[in-house]
Amino acid sequence: MTYTPRTRLFVEASLAAGAAVEASEGQAHYLSHVMRAKAGEDVALFNGRDGEWGAKVAFPSKRRVQLDVGEKLREQTVTPDVWLVFAPVKRIEFLVEKATELGVRALHPVFTRRTTIGRVNLARLSAHCMEASEQSDRLSVPELSDARPFFDFLAAWPQGRRLYFLDETGGGAPIAQVLAKANADADVKSPCAFLTGPEGGFDQSELDALRRLPFATPVGLGPRILRAETAALAALACWQAFCGDWV
Amino acid sequence: MTYTPRTRLFVEASLAAGAAVEASEGQAHYLSHVMRAKAGEDVALFNGRDGEWGAKVAFPSKRRVQLDVGEKLREQTVTPDVWLVFAPVKRIEFLVEKATELGVRALHPVFTRRTTIGRVNLARLSAHCMEASEQSDRLSVPELSDARPFFDFLAAWPQGRRLYFLDETGGGAPIAQVLAKANADADVKSPCAFLTGPEGGFDQSELDALRRLPFATPVGLGPRILRAETAALAALACWQAFCGDWV
Repeated sequence: MTYTPRTRLFVEASLAAGAAVEASEGQAHYLSHVMRAKAGEDVALFNGRDGEWGAKVAFPSKRRVQLDVGEKLREQTVTPDVWLVFAPVKRIEFLVEKATELGVRALHPVFTRRTTIGRVNLARLSAHCMEASEQSDRLSVPELSDARPFFDFLAAWPQGRRLYFLDETGGGAPIAQVLAKANADADVKSPCAFLTGPEGGFDQSELDALRRLPFATPVGLGPRILRAETAALAALACWQAFCGDWV
Repeated sequence: MTYTPRTRLFVEASLAAGAAVEASEGQAHYLSHVMRAKAGEDVALFNGRDGEWGAKVAFPSKRRVQLDVGEKLREQTVTPDVWLVFAPVKRIEFLVEKATELGVRALHPVFTRRTTIGRVNLARLSAHCMEASEQSDRLSVPELSDARPFFDFLAAWPQGRRLYFLDETGGGAPIAQVLAKANADADVKSPCAFLTGPEGGFDQSELDALRRLPFATPVGLGPRILRAETAALAALACWQAFCGDWV
């Protein structure tokens, strides 16, 4: 059987030949009313574990949409182990969408001293992550954590994960140098994270703390001032190009 | 005299000690009503030719704002010679803003076969470029041309400028390889351009034409599908990091 899906959907359920997956309310609405799918229409499903599967849309009752799983289309791949740890910014939805396209494994919002956004709407961001994953052909959705105070997050930093912080004060080595060193140290496949500050940057106490951390490396992104979201995306793109899965 | 400008402004006029520059209507409004500047307030001025200068705000009459130029703050630098040639997309303003931050020298919109945007508002985009230049600490504003048909633009391609086109069909070498080759060929400082298609990608005739051009190189950006604007920004960031002025 060949599948020509117009739609990719992330599901929680396990995927295997013959499985019947219940579409969520949002997915049912999307398939019925946006895509105007008919019974038998092809979709592609992924769950972050079992690869990508072709499935057929079925309507067992008026309000339910079922996805009848057929053949595996792609084997599951492993997303490179890079995180984005970021102070929420005004354009947070944009940031999350782009970071998802650029293949981050996890997104961790943190409240720094100068963060002006007081609250992160996790449900909404999570929907954005899912949609960007579906559209970008990812086989997984990035993990998205609840926003935490910056210093709490640092205190619980996982062993063995390098932290690259984007140092807008000019204290960091150029990113090409930093990534070349990671390559030379055969450190490429080690877990890492990029950290970006809020619109107003890190404050002095935060920079001091970062500079004392043995697992943290300051990184520079050239002579211009980049907005927080631009810096995050630029750094992720460079990392994927030189250490990640674009190589 | 020391200057602590809160505002950077792009001006057309020549800049030299003692010059009096007339603020544009928009700048006068911004200084008076948004920044609530008082006489004597510091601003920084640049024009893309004479470096960055400190100046003082003056109000010679009720509706006029004059900028009295004092000392040079920074020497003019040369922006790396990279262009972005792009099919207009829905998020064109975002694309232009980010490309400006990432230091492109020129922005050239082109209409490809699958471009769905019929018209580019040049005045509006130009204002976006200027604002992004002011905020990103650039000493120049990118050149922005009127949108032209894609094949016309290719036909008038300038000699000696390499064209990297983002090939979403997977036909390109990974960008790290392409940039490493440019470095090895000592081609780094040569003029170049990145080309991105519209949301629906290039059509076959466009890809065929691009593949026949001796000055064009297809470039790949990994296994995920990137939106047009994400691809453009990712490619520019990688280029600046490895061949441009982030090195």
